[in-house]
Amino acid sequence: MSRNLGTVQTRFFDFNDRKHPLSLRVGGELDRFTLAYEMYGRMNRDKSNVILLFHAMTGSQHAAGHNPRVPGLDGRWTSEMHEGWWDGFIGPGKALDTRQFCVLCVNYLGGCYGSTGPASVNPRTRRRWGPSFPVLRMSDIVDSQIRLLDALGVNQLHAAIGASIGGYLCLSLATRHPERVRILVPIGTGVETTIYNRIINFEQVTAIEGDPHFQAGDYYQGARPDTGLALARRIAHKTFVSLDMLRERARGEIVSHKPPHGWYEMNHPVESYMLHQGEKFVKRFDANVYLRILDAWQWFDLVAEAGAPDVHALFERCRHQEFLVFSIDSDLSFPPAEQGKLVHLLKRAHVPVMWITVHSDKGHDAFLLEPRLFSPHLQQALAR
Amino acid sequence: MSRNLGTVQTRFFDFNDRKHPLSLRVGGELDRFTLAYEMYGRMNRDKSNVILLFHAMTGSQHAAGHNPRVPGLDGRWTSEMHEGWWDGFIGPGKALDTRQFCVLCVNYLGGCYGSTGPASVNPRTRRRWGPSFPVLRMSDIVDSQIRLLDALGVNQLHAAIGASIGGYLCLSLATRHPERVRILVPIGTGVETTIYNRIINFEQVTAIEGDPHFQAGDYYQGARPDTGLALARRIAHKTFVSLDMLRERARGEIVSHKPPHGWYEMNHPVESYMLHQGEKFVKRFDANVYLRILDAWQWFDLVAEAGAPDVHALFERCRHQEFLVFSIDSDLSFPPAEQGKLVHLLKRAHVPVMWITVHSDKGHDAFLLEPRLFSPHLQQALAR
Repeated sequence: MSRNLGTVQTRFFDFNDRKHPLSLRVGGELDRFTLAYEMYGRMNRDKSNVILLFHAMTGSQHAAGHNPRVPGLDGRWTSEMHEGWWDGFIGPGKALDTRQFCVLCVNYLGGCYGSTGPASVNPRTRRRWGPSFPVLRMSDIVDSQIRLLDALGVNQLHAAIGASIGGYLCLSLATRHPERVRILVPIGTGVETTIYNRIINFEQVTAIEGDPHFQAGDYYQGARPDTGLALARRIAHKTFVSLDMLRERARGEIVSHKPPHGWYEMNHPVESYMLHQGEKFVKRFDANVYLRILDAWQWFDLVAEAGAPDVHALFERCRHQEFLVFSIDSDLSFPPAEQGKLVHLLKRAHVPVMWITVHSDKGHDAFLLEPRLFSPHLQQALAR
Repeated sequence: MSRNLGTVQTRFFDFNDRKHPLSLRVGGELDRFTLAYEMYGRMNRDKSNVILLFHAMTGSQHAAGHNPRVPGLDGRWTSEMHEGWWDGFIGPGKALDTRQFCVLCVNYLGGCYGSTGPASVNPRTRRRWGPSFPVLRMSDIVDSQIRLLDALGVNQLHAAIGASIGGYLCLSLATRHPERVRILVPIGTGVETTIYNRIINFEQVTAIEGDPHFQAGDYYQGARPDTGLALARRIAHKTFVSLDMLRERARGEIVSHKPPHGWYEMNHPVESYMLHQGEKFVKRFDANVYLRILDAWQWFDLVAEAGAPDVHALFERCRHQEFLVFSIDSDLSFPPAEQGKLVHLLKRAHVPVMWITVHSDKGHDAFLLEPRLFSPHLQQALAR
């Protein structure tokens, strides 16, 4: 029988080390930063039972249980954040069994749920970082979490799991710090940024930057670029959910004909539904943070960020790891062909890999919605 | 041997009839309007050899030959407009053989290439129509062209051809005025607005309306909503071209890292390519016109606009017509399944129909780029 975790709390890791600051890939360094994280289950004596879970783009450290409050977030901890986003996977008796494992999930550096990011106050200037926050790459986010592992005394993770761009972080960890992790579970992800994602990410960047309230990122004193951010969210959202699901979900939506911005009258529930998705999202997210993550996604270069001569040399580093790769057959955001490329590269480098494609009508977001599709193989892989 | 048409001219049809104004579906009427059109080839004595060609969303009346000048367009007749958009299909010896047929193409009512639309001056107020231009439906665009056919003395068209939303007009003509046309050639189109198109059309609407320069459509005195319109174009453009083609085309693009709106630096040729597509487009189009067409697309209701009790009764009207339906296998904008629905309905209503799917790497825009894929069947159908 599986049980839920009940109420949980976010903890904060305050990094402060002038001698060994976090060097950032594009330039600059951070000698002080905070990471918000949650842990479920207990570490064993030799700290060998830790599973690091990377959240997806707009997720948070709050993966399981109920957390009604995270301090200092300017109202972004809306009610939809209170339930852990992987609650169906984490807990006593669940796939990530907290009787056996200690699950760790960390809000991205650059994020807006308690980790230091553009919406945080820069301790040097006592003003919000805004556009002056350093440019981040996926590898920087991984490296910041390595600092947390160091502080916790975790030398080697039992496993790392990540879906969507959380899967990029998973692969970055595996290739940049191969000795720090044994089992990797990338879900609905890939080894590169697809042309389709490049195009729609760029649409989103310009939607945000084109909002007159964006003010080149310096908007914390005035109105927020909600129109641009909501549009960006809608552009992305349609790729996370299958079109059949969107049609289904929209069915329950009240059709508002109210023109949201001009004279155009909506005429179909899917428009109200999408509009609502955008409106809900801007309450819980920050435009600068969204842009920083899009930026890291667009510039994601697994090989270069790992300092490898080529993609084959890269995965040869992973020979002592084991991979479980998941695909979702209806995934429009990271189609199965993208995971196929990863599996091909792993096999070529003689890395042990199992590749499982699950069928879902729900699209990319199936990884959030359907624990039963993933749990048996997850359990088997983690038991090794 | 096929030949080109050389230099051609746009003509103007000035409708002015207080007794029999054009009634518009949503409300109101127009007793004065202008349609810009071009004709290639000569009408025969009984005017039975006319082929009406509907352009796609942002196309023009200029389908064939070279036309360096259309007066009164505020610079929108850019050099990319000078070559006819279906020049490979129209001319002596081509699929639409101008030695035999008279091909007619009309800029949409509500358009911006010489037909009356939001960017035109309202003769009553002597100011630009702007947002006060009446709301249009696909059927209104068709009916305005019927007025032109009446003026030209064309009782029955030999054929009507339309791709993309030009195909909607084709179907609207076939079902609203079944006695006016013999042969129908809808290409890469459908009988309804798909969920995917609804979603991205709505993104485009809000991108335009959210541009601070849009000013609810009243922008002709000041700066234009170019940022919003360019974003809208990019959102649509990616569905017209296959992703492989986009990657190919982008290869030749110079990567500009220059941030277009904010701090985000582009890092891939496809971003510059898309940005360029948007920038090029806003020089030749008008935001209000774009919105009006999107609006008609979103609200498109073939059955209701034809006043039919249901979709089966609708196509029973077409029993004396013949259909040639084209699909493009790589079409993301109007996937072959959409034409399948049309063919199914036609068959059920016992309408003669032939359905041809062409293979192309080019996506939806193959109908513009690859005459050889369509010409043999077009020729056969038109020869009937």
